[in-house]
Amino acid sequence: MRMTDLLQKKRDGGVLTGEEIRWMIEGYTKGEIPDYQMSAMCMAIYFRGMDRDETYALTMAMLDSGDKIDLSSISGVKADKHSTGGVGDKTSLLLCPMVAACGVKMAKLSGRGLGHTGGTIDKLESFPGFSVEMSEEAFIRQVNEVGFAIAGQTAELCPADKKLYALRDVTATVASLPLIVSSILCKKLAVGADVIVLDVKCGSGAFMHTEEDAFALARALVDVGRWAGRKVVAVVTDMDEPLGATVGNAIEVREALATLRGEYRGELMELCLVLGTQILRESGVAPDDETAKKMLEHAVESGAALEKFAAFVKAQGGDPAAVYDPDKLPLAPVRKDVLAEAAGYVKGIQAEDVGLVSMRLGGGRASKEDTIDLGVGVALYKKVGQPVAAGEKLGTVFAETEAAAEEAAKQLRACYEIVSEKVVRAPFVKGVVK
Amino acid sequence: MRMTDLLQKKRDGGVLTGEEIRWMIEGYTKGEIPDYQMSAMCMAIYFRGMDRDETYALTMAMLDSGDKIDLSSISGVKADKHSTGGVGDKTSLLLCPMVAACGVKMAKLSGRGLGHTGGTIDKLESFPGFSVEMSEEAFIRQVNEVGFAIAGQTAELCPADKKLYALRDVTATVASLPLIVSSILCKKLAVGADVIVLDVKCGSGAFMHTEEDAFALARALVDVGRWAGRKVVAVVTDMDEPLGATVGNAIEVREALATLRGEYRGELMELCLVLGTQILRESGVAPDDETAKKMLEHAVESGAALEKFAAFVKAQGGDPAAVYDPDKLPLAPVRKDVLAEAAGYVKGIQAEDVGLVSMRLGGGRASKEDTIDLGVGVALYKKVGQPVAAGEKLGTVFAETEAAAEEAAKQLRACYEIVSEKVVRAPFVKGVVK
Repeated sequence: MRMTDLLQKKRDGGVLTGEEIRWMIEGYTKGEIPDYQMSAMCMAIYFRGMDRDETYALTMAMLDSGDKIDLSSISGVKADKHSTGGVGDKTSLLLCPMVAACGVKMAKLSGRGLGHTGGTIDKLESFPGFSVEMSEEAFIRQVNEVGFAIAGQTAELCPADKKLYALRDVTATVASLPLIVSSILCKKLAVGADVIVLDVKCGSGAFMHTEEDAFALARALVDVGRWAGRKVVAVVTDMDEPLGATVGNAIEVREALATLRGEYRGELMELCLVLGTQILRESGVAPDDETAKKMLEHAVESGAALEKFAAFVKAQGGDPAAVYDPDKLPLAPVRKDVLAEAAGYVKGIQAEDVGLVSMRLGGGRASKEDTIDLGVGVALYKKVGQPVAAGEKLGTVFAETEAAAEEAAKQLRACYEIVSEKVVRAPFVKGVVK
Repeated sequence: MRMTDLLQKKRDGGVLTGEEIRWMIEGYTKGEIPDYQMSAMCMAIYFRGMDRDETYALTMAMLDSGDKIDLSSISGVKADKHSTGGVGDKTSLLLCPMVAACGVKMAKLSGRGLGHTGGTIDKLESFPGFSVEMSEEAFIRQVNEVGFAIAGQTAELCPADKKLYALRDVTATVASLPLIVSSILCKKLAVGADVIVLDVKCGSGAFMHTEEDAFALARALVDVGRWAGRKVVAVVTDMDEPLGATVGNAIEVREALATLRGEYRGELMELCLVLGTQILRESGVAPDDETAKKMLEHAVESGAALEKFAAFVKAQGGDPAAVYDPDKLPLAPVRKDVLAEAAGYVKGIQAEDVGLVSMRLGGGRASKEDTIDLGVGVALYKKVGQPVAAGEKLGTVFAETEAAAEEAAKQLRACYEIVSEKVVRAPFVKGVVK
């Protein structure tokens, strides 16, 4: 087999065979196929696409390039959740205990990554003593005993994807549907969950800007994932504004806990109910969506989900008292409110820009070596569609210094678009693809 | 400027600016832009194309990456000719003396290259003592005195093109019109000819298989070349069968000389007359095509062109006696005829395959280090459209050994398609683009 022949075939709109794709990915991972051929292939795929069988073959080849996590010793149904990323996304912190309280196991591995805020495991480190480092045995034991665990990823999952993604990032070939699908799925398939629910974000703060693109991604993810033998469901949700009422690290944990305590009931809970419903239904724990939703709501109202969360924090070495007393979580000392200059309605909140406010305050990582300030962040009191009075608080920034707070408040104000006419908010959940 | 931005722009169908293209080519030549970004760019260009201004900018950026040959000290009009390559192409050997005999200077630099036969300079080395190595001063003096010179290329013309072509070759991005156009033109522009005539081959033995593609290439070459201020004309000609009656090295020189002596008058002379006509007209030496053609025919009939050729061989150290006595040229000792098995008409002669016969006999180079056997080759007595009787000679192979001759004859026979119904040959010259 020669890479130039495969390049020509894809360039001319041909369909690569499973054997060809496997040969290519194995060769690329070993360094036998050079970056310059692979980048040309990515660009050809960008233009020509891949059908379901090709995408499946690519996914499986990348999956087989690295370690796999064997969850078979966990009893019962195992579920996993993935989000295509967004600003203020603390969903896992609520979804895991809610679902676990309903009897479905969640075994989540999480990376730290780069971004406006830390990843889920950074946020969890807001609990004093909390650790995400554990052996595979300890991880499995905790899932069996507590119902869920969230650990840092130590095994080398899908090195082919890691190498390919780095190449795509510098060759303008990230935005290719089959390449996105295979990259997301190979890592999910490497962790052996039976049910996988995918939160596909859509809007200005998301990778997919239009609903059409988001649904196409959702459809492809579900098709290829089901072809791989897993129960995969995708939910398309709005990311035109940040998710929920906070952006940061400890401050997002506070919001998650307040929501689990039933103090808030916004789109964050709506999202967790929708995602959780898919998991319970696909797991066979609930007979239908309505029952599933009721089970999840009951898990919150009864306090069972919050208890699960406390047990989880304790199992991973954290202080569970902070679950009931959020003031034990870090919070930056300087706060500055952002006020509305005139009355009107919130037309939009630039999610990406709010993320950058958090990043500049020290809440995110620009490079792998950066340390995260867990206490800084942003609270948003007004969301899209809500009326505001002149002088009313739109949000608050939490910073380490007066100067940083001043600057961040100015930036946060610029994220808000306030108009005089009434604004009708588009539905938060755009649809479910299964 | 960032290469990823340029990649995204071209990927999305944008038009790169001259500044962006120059930055990219300079960076690539210096090694500051890596192969993997450039190959992705080539693939994006393959799909999105480039307009005339972009192609022009790319051509000029590659031209400026290396040396230029200053021909300004040559008196009168200087012309150059380029062929997109084909099997049995010995056109330069006739065209240069014919045009020079009519008063237009031809200053040709030629590479050895890889292929089924040697390049023009390999073929010329069939003359004992002939040398293609000369200083730029000697080259210019000879063009002034003799009317033409054909020298090996020593200056480093267009290193950017060399690097880019090697990359395109292994990333399935050779077949992109703007990339082909800029690659051909930058090297022609680096040699300062006033008039450039391009022979664009079309057919199964050529790079462009269809007339449509060949005319598109011709059009683009002329548009960009004229935009660069040169008088550029392209002639689209057939390459469905090998050009002329021979394929090899010394054997092609023999055919060229016989044609110059007026012994043959096939498509080879037709081609030289068409190409020469464009040169004489564009040079202003002839007022119209008809006069130009008559001048060229007269140069052949009067023996002036043959005399020019002899003077040229002598000037470059070769034995001019061989011009009048071709038996002084090498010829492999073992010959084997290929006979027609049944009567009929020649429907086709696989040009590419005839080239491979020559190559396997030792007449071409597969890698740079290979030495060429100047004496081996193939003679073709029957061309497409001609009738053949059963047992009549179709061709002859010239080889070093009986075994090689036997094998080559078998292969040559397989190149011929003979059918019982009459065959109408398509016109050899498809058109002129100016």
